[in-house]
Amino acid sequence: MRLALEPPTDPTAYDFSHPIRVRFAETDAMGIVHHAGYLTYFEEARVAYLRHLDHPYDKVRAEGIDFAVLEAYVHYRQPLRFDDVVDVFVSVGEVTRVTCQLGYFLQLGDTSIATGVTVHGCVNPAGRPVRLPDWLRSVADDKGWTGRR
Amino acid sequence: MRLALEPPTDPTAYDFSHPIRVRFAETDAMGIVHHAGYLTYFEEARVAYLRHLDHPYDKVRAEGIDFAVLEAYVHYRQPLRFDDVVDVFVSVGEVTRVTCQLGYFLQLGDTSIATGVTVHGCVNPAGRPVRLPDWLRSVADDKGWTGRR
Amino acid sequence: MRLALEPPTDPTAYDFSHPIRVRFAETDAMGIVHHAGYLTYFEEARVAYLRHLDHPYDKVRAEGIDFAVLEAYVHYRQPLRFDDVVDVFVSVGEVTRVTCQLGYFLQLGDTSIATGVTVHGCVNPAGRPVRLPDWLRSVADDKGWTGRR
Amino acid sequence: MRLALEPPTDPTAYDFSHPIRVRFAETDAMGIVHHAGYLTYFEEARVAYLRHLDHPYDKVRAEGIDFAVLEAYVHYRQPLRFDDVVDVFVSVGEVTRVTCQLGYFLQLGDTSIATGVTVHGCVNPAGRPVRLPDWLRSVADDKGWTGRR
Repeated sequence: MRLALEPPTDPTAYDFSHPIRVRFAETDAMGIVHHAGYLTYFEEARVAYLRHLDHPYDKVRAEGIDFAVLEAYVHYRQPLRFDDVVDVFVSVGEVTRVTCQLGYFLQLGDTSIATGVTVHGCVNPAGRPVRLPDWLRSVADDKGWTGRR
Repeated sequence: MRLALEPPTDPTAYDFSHPIRVRFAETDAMGIVHHAGYLTYFEEARVAYLRHLDHPYDKVRAEGIDFAVLEAYVHYRQPLRFDDVVDVFVSVGEVTRVTCQLGYFLQLGDTSIATGVTVHGCVNPAGRPVRLPDWLRSVADDKGWTGRR
Repeated sequence: MRLALEPPTDPTAYDFSHPIRVRFAETDAMGIVHHAGYLTYFEEARVAYLRHLDHPYDKVRAEGIDFAVLEAYVHYRQPLRFDDVVDVFVSVGEVTRVTCQLGYFLQLGDTSIATGVTVHGCVNPAGRPVRLPDWLRSVADDKGWTGRR
Repeated sequence: MRLALEPPTDPTAYDFSHPIRVRFAETDAMGIVHHAGYLTYFEEARVAYLRHLDHPYDKVRAEGIDFAVLEAYVHYRQPLRFDDVVDVFVSVGEVTRVTCQLGYFLQLGDTSIATGVTVHGCVNPAGRPVRLPDWLRSVADDKGWTGRR
């Protein structure tokens, strides 16, 4: 297990945020967003974050790299409902030579909805691990999120 | 619009059936299966039907053909709920030189849940229309489902 | 079958449009948006359209009505890919005393991606058919989309 | 963070297994099952496991309890592809007075596909924490999976 971030429930600790409006299709019979949907929200925010960093996915792939998801973690704190507009905060939290970890915080107004982490391996088109690009490494200045375990 | 089938709500009119148990993730905040999920049920039944016809998808692709979805139609009659086990009846209902239409009927016990149609184009790996394979053509004996419009 | 609209591939024929950016999770192994996802795009656009009409879903429900999906139809013309931003055009196309039909057109740049129709029944919280509200009836001026069949 | 299990990649360490055939709709443009789909597989296996324990969900709810998802973790080891039939092994791994943790292991033939954990809170219909039922507590004999952190 590589998972090593403790994403804070403080919006100011993050580099970027992206709003997502909950679709009806994403709710379940408990009347709330199904728990699997949070990983899709993380992904949408991650893609927007890369675009914000001036490295949209098509450019990343044109550079010959892709990011395989190695691990994912979600801590559900309060439910989301249909038509809620949730802010997804995201930052690169830790990097190694071939992996990076992103931390997420979902906030609805002043309510903490969820936190989460995804761990990615940098791979080439053949799926082989390759060195993390410098632009991604440079984003990951120490945020003091680690050391939990 | 190629859609030209009127799938009956009579199980005996179909060649094949496939049971699907409703996942919780497939329900929505109305407490029922979200309407988009029916197309996924059709697809699962279609794949099982091809396997039953001794032409599973990997074999079909090895023959150099794929089936692009051109049109889809669903008539929702009664809702489905979590953990329901619905029988999905399916048959090839009409073919042309390069397309085929499949009809579907979902039944829960004695209750008619839905009917539907998907229209598929036979294409090669480059996405170009190609002639329907003979085995598929031979399945599509006239079922008297057409002529509605 | 109530389905009776032929939505045009002309953006100017629609009252409203709503942009949607394709999520990676919505693609499939053919590298394109899975066909079931279009119904979810229709729904997101429909919800935005109701908001635009000053009748967001929570207000509609507070008025004691809901819209059950009775039928859905999609005509797939060209594929969508990850990160595409597609415009979803939508309009009420036909109403009866208790049902309404909405037409949809998806366009990517100048490319026609898909058209579709959803048929809705107006119901009360107990699921019984009720009369369509006046505000919705008034939106459905004749668009000349019907009569196809 | 309550997450405290290290589910082994050994099928014999689990109480129960449940086969799932991958749907085409669950794949993504990388040609593999999208990472969010694993949480849905866990859920389907969890529901089957409760049924196997003679406490299917409707019976559990009739007893006035529900299980809220508090945390979820997935470790992705090898990809899954369309039409693969994966075995999902599952067991209750740890309980407290009001929570339980389930461990999962996905295996395809002899290949380890993924491991994962979900943490659940036992709640009443009003969403208030309630004591774990005895039948669930009794299932959770020590499996020696904990203590990782």
